[in-house]
Amino acid sequence: MNIEMIQASASRAAGHVRYTPMLSSPFLDEIAGRRVLLKAECLQHTGSFKYRGAWSAVSSLDQGARARGVIAFSSGNHAQAIALSARHHGTSAVIVMPSDAPVIKIDNTRALGAEVVLYDREREDRLAIGEAIAKDRGLTLIQPFDEPQVIAGQGTCGLEIAQQAAEMGAVGAPVLVCCGGGGFTSGVALALEGTGHSVHPVEPEGFDDVIRSMASGRRERNTRQSGSLCDAIVTPSPGELTFPIIQRLCGRGIVVSEDEAMRAVALAFLRLKVVLEPGGAVALAAALFHPGAVEGDAVIATASGGNIDADVFARALDTL
Amino acid sequence: MNIEMIQASASRAAGHVRYTPMLSSPFLDEIAGRRVLLKAECLQHTGSFKYRGAWSAVSSLDQGARARGVIAFSSGNHAQAIALSARHHGTSAVIVMPSDAPVIKIDNTRALGAEVVLYDREREDRLAIGEAIAKDRGLTLIQPFDEPQVIAGQGTCGLEIAQQAAEMGAVGAPVLVCCGGGGFTSGVALALEGTGHSVHPVEPEGFDDVIRSMASGRRERNTRQSGSLCDAIVTPSPGELTFPIIQRLCGRGIVVSEDEAMRAVALAFLRLKVVLEPGGAVALAAALFHPGAVEGDAVIATASGGNIDADVFARALDTL
Repeated sequence: MNIEMIQASASRAAGHVRYTPMLSSPFLDEIAGRRVLLKAECLQHTGSFKYRGAWSAVSSLDQGARARGVIAFSSGNHAQAIALSARHHGTSAVIVMPSDAPVIKIDNTRALGAEVVLYDREREDRLAIGEAIAKDRGLTLIQPFDEPQVIAGQGTCGLEIAQQAAEMGAVGAPVLVCCGGGGFTSGVALALEGTGHSVHPVEPEGFDDVIRSMASGRRERNTRQSGSLCDAIVTPSPGELTFPIIQRLCGRGIVVSEDEAMRAVALAFLRLKVVLEPGGAVALAAALFHPGAVEGDAVIATASGGNIDADVFARALDTL
Repeated sequence: MNIEMIQASASRAAGHVRYTPMLSSPFLDEIAGRRVLLKAECLQHTGSFKYRGAWSAVSSLDQGARARGVIAFSSGNHAQAIALSARHHGTSAVIVMPSDAPVIKIDNTRALGAEVVLYDREREDRLAIGEAIAKDRGLTLIQPFDEPQVIAGQGTCGLEIAQQAAEMGAVGAPVLVCCGGGGFTSGVALALEGTGHSVHPVEPEGFDDVIRSMASGRRERNTRQSGSLCDAIVTPSPGELTFPIIQRLCGRGIVVSEDEAMRAVALAFLRLKVVLEPGGAVALAAALFHPGAVEGDAVIATASGGNIDADVFARALDTL
């Protein structure tokens, strides 16, 4: 993994992946006690930064592999990103999803052109099913985060952050990243290495595997893997590839509560006019409600995604 | 009014007014039966395109007038835009608002650095109060739409639309504009004159003064001036300056229902991750639900603003 891979990924993405805006509001600056800039990846295609990694991975395949198609396991943001990336590359995607996934997610993934293969979570092994299909059809499996070309794709967001920070007079501001398996965090950290921007993973309370791993020096696991409103960024543990990068490059991590994430969702609605999912709002929550965690006149928060159900969004607005 | 004024306004705005993104979703394309591109002015500073006109007007003042300050009558998007523009120019703004305006709007306007002067709608004349203050302090009144530099500022959005349409392969696509007093519509129409893009005003049912005026050839009035969820774009009649421009340059207008506007708000939440107010969603509603009104493979809809109360937003989400 190196900056050249990220730059090459950015070249392949030009004109296909959205250059997302950096938003701000004097009302949020007031709450945080410093300038807050929000990198709005919720406005990326399919509503999350995952499209960067998906585009990067699909576009990096050789012609033969690309023509045969790709496969992914996901019921969330990665699934939609892979489905749409494959369609825009004129190839096919198979998405392996649990049969009890919300119907809307299954329908959305199909509407984006993917073939959905359902499996019974209780009785079947998704890996066995996926590998059988992949082998049978010659498909390439694209992992959600522990995959070099995916990390390189997420890193393209870091290149944009460096450029926008320079344009907006925030060179060297700390960058807070919503952190799940670490693909986004490690990619952004690689892209910003040597620029003077420190990068800080932000995780929800009870699911701080990356931050605990940074402290212990080995890949720690979350005791729970579900039951968080921040589900989009909940993963069992940091990746084999992502963790060493995070350990080498990242500054101190920040843990926020679910309540803080929900309040950040509400404030992004009120002050920035963007829709965030709770997991996509943890970095903004850290910027707003943990001002002591980082130093400087300005702070940059990534908003990783906006795929939130209407009823959860309505609950977030109740915090206003 | 001419294109040079718009280009000059764009030069003054560079680095201060946000270049807003053009968003899209395959799900919206499916509903409309063609490509839909949304110019997301809800992401402009203070949450609406009004910041363009406000910046344009304040930045066009000579040094003396600018130092003395500005005054505006508004309880809505224009007020916030003038307040923040004045603050960023290092000058003062007085905003004359009715004393029964929502407390949150009064507080927001004050928080943006403006002095708020309240008047009693029943017993006092805001024009008399405003003129007395303006004369007393040498302030410049900035009208919300019937003002050349405001129209020029709104036109800068049209320059961006032309550039983005070219980048996205949508040259000549019809442009639907949320239309109140016509400042936005006339500015965008002037900016796009001769580019091959037709411009179409969109108004809510019962408040279609501009479209009726286009038909009759004279400035018609709305019978009601309140009671619309689309309040942000409800004005008594088209402007003296804006109407002749609209009449000369615009194509057929489109009327949408409040229900359609609310459904467009919900779909912008679900598919684009942006927050629209109902008045800011009428153009998107026209693109989605009135596909026969314009021709072509693609349509561009402006989203004029996103300043919506949480309870109205929750009601919009109930339409999903």
